[in-house]
Amino acid sequence: MGNCLVAQSGGPTSVINATVAGVIQANQLNPIYEHVYGGLHGIEGILNEEFVDLTNLSDNGIQLLKQTCASALGSCRYKLKRDNVEDFEKIMAILDAYNIDTMFYTGGNDSMDTVAALSEYAAEHNIRNHRFIGCPKTVDNDLVITDHCPGFASAAKFLATVAKLTWMDVNVYTRQEVFILETMGRDAGWLAASTVLSGKVDLLVLPEVEFDKDRFLAQVKEIVDAKNKCYIVVSEGAKFADGTYLAAGEAKNDGFGHAVLGGAGNAIKNMILESGVAKRAKVQDMSTLQRCNAACQSKVDVEESFRLGMSAHMHSQDPTFTGKMVAVKRPEEGAYNPLFFTVDAKEVANFVKHVPAEWILDDYRGMTQEFYDYALPLIQGEPDVIMDNGVIAQIEPFYL
Amino acid sequence: MGNCLVAQSGGPTSVINATVAGVIQANQLNPIYEHVYGGLHGIEGILNEEFVDLTNLSDNGIQLLKQTCASALGSCRYKLKRDNVEDFEKIMAILDAYNIDTMFYTGGNDSMDTVAALSEYAAEHNIRNHRFIGCPKTVDNDLVITDHCPGFASAAKFLATVAKLTWMDVNVYTRQEVFILETMGRDAGWLAASTVLSGKVDLLVLPEVEFDKDRFLAQVKEIVDAKNKCYIVVSEGAKFADGTYLAAGEAKNDGFGHAVLGGAGNAIKNMILESGVAKRAKVQDMSTLQRCNAACQSKVDVEESFRLGMSAHMHSQDPTFTGKMVAVKRPEEGAYNPLFFTVDAKEVANFVKHVPAEWILDDYRGMTQEFYDYALPLIQGEPDVIMDNGVIAQIEPFYL
Repeated sequence: MGNCLVAQSGGPTSVINATVAGVIQANQLNPIYEHVYGGLHGIEGILNEEFVDLTNLSDNGIQLLKQTCASALGSCRYKLKRDNVEDFEKIMAILDAYNIDTMFYTGGNDSMDTVAALSEYAAEHNIRNHRFIGCPKTVDNDLVITDHCPGFASAAKFLATVAKLTWMDVNVYTRQEVFILETMGRDAGWLAASTVLSGKVDLLVLPEVEFDKDRFLAQVKEIVDAKNKCYIVVSEGAKFADGTYLAAGEAKNDGFGHAVLGGAGNAIKNMILESGVAKRAKVQDMSTLQRCNAACQSKVDVEESFRLGMSAHMHSQDPTFTGKMVAVKRPEEGAYNPLFFTVDAKEVANFVKHVPAEWILDDYRGMTQEFYDYALPLIQGEPDVIMDNGVIAQIEPFYL
Repeated sequence: MGNCLVAQSGGPTSVINATVAGVIQANQLNPIYEHVYGGLHGIEGILNEEFVDLTNLSDNGIQLLKQTCASALGSCRYKLKRDNVEDFEKIMAILDAYNIDTMFYTGGNDSMDTVAALSEYAAEHNIRNHRFIGCPKTVDNDLVITDHCPGFASAAKFLATVAKLTWMDVNVYTRQEVFILETMGRDAGWLAASTVLSGKVDLLVLPEVEFDKDRFLAQVKEIVDAKNKCYIVVSEGAKFADGTYLAAGEAKNDGFGHAVLGGAGNAIKNMILESGVAKRAKVQDMSTLQRCNAACQSKVDVEESFRLGMSAHMHSQDPTFTGKMVAVKRPEEGAYNPLFFTVDAKEVANFVKHVPAEWILDDYRGMTQEFYDYALPLIQGEPDVIMDNGVIAQIEPFYL
C-alpha cells in the first residue's frame, strides 16, 4: 500500500486547512493510503524531505485544522520552473523514497501550474506511480472554470461585515465623512465587490473597469453633496486606463513577478482631498487580516473546502487520475449545494477569472443582482468553533 | 410621571448600544419613566431637540441594539463649555419642555465631564427636577476608578484574535518576516497590551514606557536572529522620552484638542528597515474596525454593558442621584462577575488611567501575569447574534 502527500502553496486563506482535513478524514474513512504525509512549506519543503505524518490526526485535531487559518503546513512561493530538470528529478526520487502514490497540492494559479508541470513531467518520463492533484484555494477567487475558490467566501463574508460595521462607525457624527476601504484581490475585483453584500457601499472601484478620475470624483461629489457621507471600496488592483495601478507609487514585485499591491485607498483619498470634493477622508486597509480571519469563516466555505479535500482523495482512487484539479459548480436550480467535478490543472494555471463586466454597474455604483445571486449563498452560516480562553483556537503549525 | 433621556457621545465601541438597551429594558420591567427618549448625536442633537421614542422597543429591537456597534443614536464631539451659559440654559429648558427627570449619558472622559458640568449647573441653580447620570464606555479603557470600561473587552478580544490569526499568516513562509500591528488606545496602552492574550506577541510598545529606539532595535535584532520572525504590537500613543509621538509626523488635532494619532506602526517599520536589523516588515493598522467589530463581541462585555444600563436606570429612582457615573468592580475572589457601584462623574472626568508600570515587562517583552488575570475574564464568551443574510444584523441607526 502506498502513501499520499498533501502540501500547501501560495497566500493564506481562512479555510485552506479544511481541504487538508478533508484528505485526512477521507483516508480515515477509506484508508487507501497507509500514510497521509503533510509536506511542509509546499514544494520548498518537499525538496528538503520535510514531512509530518497526519494519518491518525484525532477528531479534535481535524476540527482544529478546519478552523485554523493560513497554512498549517506552511507555504511557499517557490516557482517550479519547467526547465529546471534537477528539481523534477529530485521530487520524483523523494516520492519514490516515501512510496507516495498521490500528491495533493492546494493553491492558486501558480500551484495549479505546479500540478500541471509535475504531471506532464511524469507522463513524458513514463512515470505512472506518482499522481498530482490540485485543490483550489485563493481569497482572490480568480481561478477559471471552477465556480469559485474555497477561501473566497470567508474573506468575502468578513469584508462585507467590515463594510457594514465601519459604515455604522463612520456615520455616527454629523460632520462630513468619506470612508475608503481597500481590499485585496490582485487583478480581479471579487473581494472588493463582495463588500456590496453589506448593503452600505456607495462607490466601488474594481480592477475590471478602467479608472476615470474625473468621472469618479463627480460621483463622490454627488454623493457627498446629497448626504454628507460617502462610503467607498477600492480594490488594490484598480488601474487607470493606461494600465498603471492607482497604487503605482508603492508597487513592488514578489518572487513570481506579480506586483505587490497596496495603497489604492490612499491614492483615492489624496485625489478626493486635492480635488476638494470632500474635506475629510479616512482609509481602512484590511491588509493581511482579510485573508486569515478564521473568526469570520463562512460555514458554507469551510464545509466546501473540507468536502473538496475528501472529493480529491476519492478521485485519487482512479490510478489514471493525475494533472487534475477538483473544481466546484453549483446546482442549476434549487438551494445552493456545492457539486464537485474535475478539470485539467493546465486549463486553470496562469489564467485569471475577472468579475464579468455585465455584473458591474456604471459609474462605480456597485453590482447587479447577478453578483448578489452568485455571492450570497457562499457567505452563509457560521461554524461552531473551539475557543481557547476567549480567542478562537488554532492548531499549532506543523512546521514549527 | 416624568420621562428619561439617553444619549451617546464620543467614539464608537462594539457594545455601547447595549447600555442603551439596558436602560430601555429596565424601564419596561419597572416603568418609572413614561417615555424613554433617545437623544440623537449626543448634546449636539439634544440642543436641537432631536429625540426618538425608545420606550416600547421590541424584544427583537433590544437584541439587535445589543449587537449593534458604534452609536445607534449617533454621537458627537461637541464640548459643553462651563462658561457657555446659553447652552446650559437651553438644555435645561428643553429638559423642562420634555419633562425629562433623568438624562443618561454614555461616553468617556469628556462625556463624564459633561455629566459633571450639567449636574453642577443644576445644583448651582437649584434645579432639582433634572438629574444627570454617566455610563462609561470607551475602547481605550482609560477611565479611572472603574475597574474597566464597557467596550474595552470586545476590542481587546478582537485585537487578541487579530494577533493570533495574523501571526499564523506571517509565519507560513520560510523567509524573514517582521509584522507590526498598530492599535488604538490614545495615551493608554490597554488595547495594545490586550494583544498579548493571543500568546503570539514578541515585542509590545506601550505609551506608558518611554520609547528607546536603540534598546528596542536591539530586541528586534535578537528575536529576528533567533527565529527569523518578529511579531510586534505598537500603540498609536507610543512616545519617545521627550514626549513626541512615534507617529509625530502625522499627528493632527480633533475638536477636543486631542492629538489624532496614527502612524506609529509605519514609524517602527521605517526604523527597523533603516537600521538594517531586518530586511522586510509589514504593518497592519487595525484603524476603525477595532472599535466597531460587533462580529467579535465579548459576551462578558456586552452583558456587562447591558446590565450597567439597567443599573443606571435603577439607581435613578433615587431623586438625589445626580452627577454620578455607574462604575464596575470585580469580586474580590471567585469567578468573574461584574459588580456595579457609583462614583462622582467629576472624579472620572479628565483623568487618564494608564496601564500600571509594574504590569509591564522590561525590554518590550510584554505583560506580567497580573495583566492576564485582569484581562482574560473580560474577553470570555461569544453572544448568539441575529444574522442578516450571512452578515451580522445591525439595527437601523435612529439618526437616519
